[in-house]
Amino acid sequence: MDYKTASLKLHEMLRGKVEMRARTDIRSKEDLATVYSPGVSEPCLAIQKQPHLSYVYTRRHNTVAVISDGSAVLGLGDIGPEASMPVMEGKAVLFKQLGGVDAIPLCLKTQDVDEIVMIIHALSGSFGGINLEDIAAPRCFEIERRLKELCDIPIFHDDQHGTAIVVLAALINALKVVKKDVGAIKVVINGIGAAGSAIAEFLLDYGVRDLLLCDRYGLLSRDDATLSPAHRQLAEKTNPNCLKGSLSTAVRDADVFIGVSVPDCLHAEDIKNMADNPIVLPLANPRPEIAYETAQEAGAKVIGTGLSNYPNQINNLLAFPGVFRGALDAQAQDITRPMMIAAAEAIASCVADHQLSVDHIIPSPLDPVVHQKVAAAVKAAVRQHGVAIHGALARYLGQTP
Amino acid sequence: MDYKTASLKLHEMLRGKVEMRARTDIRSKEDLATVYSPGVSEPCLAIQKQPHLSYVYTRRHNTVAVISDGSAVLGLGDIGPEASMPVMEGKAVLFKQLGGVDAIPLCLKTQDVDEIVMIIHALSGSFGGINLEDIAAPRCFEIERRLKELCDIPIFHDDQHGTAIVVLAALINALKVVKKDVGAIKVVINGIGAAGSAIAEFLLDYGVRDLLLCDRYGLLSRDDATLSPAHRQLAEKTNPNCLKGSLSTAVRDADVFIGVSVPDCLHAEDIKNMADNPIVLPLANPRPEIAYETAQEAGAKVIGTGLSNYPNQINNLLAFPGVFRGALDAQAQDITRPMMIAAAEAIASCVADHQLSVDHIIPSPLDPVVHQKVAAAVKAAVRQHGVAIHGALARYLGQTP
Repeated sequence: MDYKTASLKLHEMLRGKVEMRARTDIRSKEDLATVYSPGVSEPCLAIQKQPHLSYVYTRRHNTVAVISDGSAVLGLGDIGPEASMPVMEGKAVLFKQLGGVDAIPLCLKTQDVDEIVMIIHALSGSFGGINLEDIAAPRCFEIERRLKELCDIPIFHDDQHGTAIVVLAALINALKVVKKDVGAIKVVINGIGAAGSAIAEFLLDYGVRDLLLCDRYGLLSRDDATLSPAHRQLAEKTNPNCLKGSLSTAVRDADVFIGVSVPDCLHAEDIKNMADNPIVLPLANPRPEIAYETAQEAGAKVIGTGLSNYPNQINNLLAFPGVFRGALDAQAQDITRPMMIAAAEAIASCVADHQLSVDHIIPSPLDPVVHQKVAAAVKAAVRQHGVAIHGALARYLGQTP
Repeated sequence: MDYKTASLKLHEMLRGKVEMRARTDIRSKEDLATVYSPGVSEPCLAIQKQPHLSYVYTRRHNTVAVISDGSAVLGLGDIGPEASMPVMEGKAVLFKQLGGVDAIPLCLKTQDVDEIVMIIHALSGSFGGINLEDIAAPRCFEIERRLKELCDIPIFHDDQHGTAIVVLAALINALKVVKKDVGAIKVVINGIGAAGSAIAEFLLDYGVRDLLLCDRYGLLSRDDATLSPAHRQLAEKTNPNCLKGSLSTAVRDADVFIGVSVPDCLHAEDIKNMADNPIVLPLANPRPEIAYETAQEAGAKVIGTGLSNYPNQINNLLAFPGVFRGALDAQAQDITRPMMIAAAEAIASCVADHQLSVDHIIPSPLDPVVHQKVAAAVKAAVRQHGVAIHGALARYLGQTP
């Protein structure tokens, strides 16, 4: 049975991959009076006086909403809210199993930016964090930016930042394998949507100096008057010499190719024109920018894809469970760049130097140790970099904010 | 330890009364490929083609949102979204334990009618039903009406209809005890908010002919030009002789008093002026419209309150778990008056004629049989009264819609 048939059968048998579980029993009138009415009014009144006590008396401290508008689901595109739910439920299973996080899957019947922002802000008092999922670019940028301003809980668009974290983790280790320094490499990213933009910002922050961005129209250049605001911002930070041309021009002498775009747009000839020991990460899924075998034959030294049946699968799953576990444990009000870089370094550190090889730059996402390390690193980054946390709550719990 | 202290301690110990549970394990790459990517795209695509298959491939068929704006929580009033959460979580525990329903508690940071309607409609594709909770009148009427028009899933404001169902159940049995007929009684309802309005509509539908409604301004009368639209609608159907005066005037010769108002507004003298064998249901909580003992001494024959430490507790908990269980099992797209009346009759039927007494007109809400009977009755009402159901889904499941 192929995995498609197997998946359909599994879903039909399960009829839902997550469910609510009561953490307490109500067996008597006394139970009813403490769990529910009239006793429940006591924690209600305590929270009314000090809203942060919602992290003590309710499940908020461990609960994240996984929210999508169904507009950019997997490789399927805009399939609507109902059809997106199997993905969001799957994500909730992974959140629980790998991060111990309670994730509530919510799919919205709207793709209007103002409405989505209003809805998620209105829901934010019920959650300890928001994982935005599969929302198309450029809408996702504005939604995330506005929600980060409005809400006092972490907001994280996994398709952007989750991908960027794992790509950086892979790059850190791949550079060790080929013995190159991050400050000296030339990197080309093909695809300037949600993932590509986030990876670019991330790599610049991490010390990459020579970065070129490409999309189907060719190299992104600051002297192009027709750029969108989001692309203009990126153009100002990349391609300082206003190089023009196609992807083939861009990758000439590049040390790293990162593809978050469409199948088969990178050719064997392009890889041959890259610098020595090129790192090639064609992440389009399920068909990468160049087939693994073709890239290998053309001389790619380290290859990472989105596929599970080849070495070095670059999988978001490596990041989000531990990132939210750490942010929740630290009672962080935001997920910041230092927290995300700490997560990337933690993932990279899961492959010890003596284990590193061209076929092993990234750990397995099903290894629970990875997620524990990510969570610990994110939590430590909160303390080290002083991200605003819920001081009133920390004091209540007897911790130092 | 009193129940307030006990409740606070319990909540602090539990740190959340519900949580998400995964219904499947991911232990291998193969598990990951069927539960999540890439296999999950198959159920996604199937639902995209036939949206009702979301009831087959996801948890929607068993999942209800419990949504409040935090504006009329228990007897506490407008305490806001965070402080309402302990109540909503408690409701979710009861939904699961008594009805087997997965209930997701959501508290909204808005009390604007348009926003609440937009938010809940946008969320409706993720749920099999919506339980509105603790939303103040008159806002709750418009919110429910508009959502019923917009959504193709059951919408149920428990503070209105849940209360009305249980009051009708109590009345059915109380009338048996005092041997009076529903068509021949005079009923006074004090309080014309969410609960009072719903009880009034319900009793009229059930055959009560002589109904008077009161609030702090006295008797509701159709010749009053200052009435709100909601009150005008009720005035047209009640108090045909345009009787004027206070609650004391209204209850003269009444067979039944139902209070959903404020403490201590009904006096011993009022009960003495009622008809023989009066039924008195002072439901204000935690302090009723008249103390139990005072009502008893004044000659009330059957007394029911909202309190658990007296006989005949009129508790919403008797209705909502079975109502939603039945509606979900019947794949109903709405919860209609016939379904609600079936629920009330099912609750009443749980006290057999030979068990009936002035101190026993209503079953215990912790008896699982009650909720099974309610669910079965609601499901039967769907079939009998032909409420629109998801035909495409029923055909898929091999059932007759």
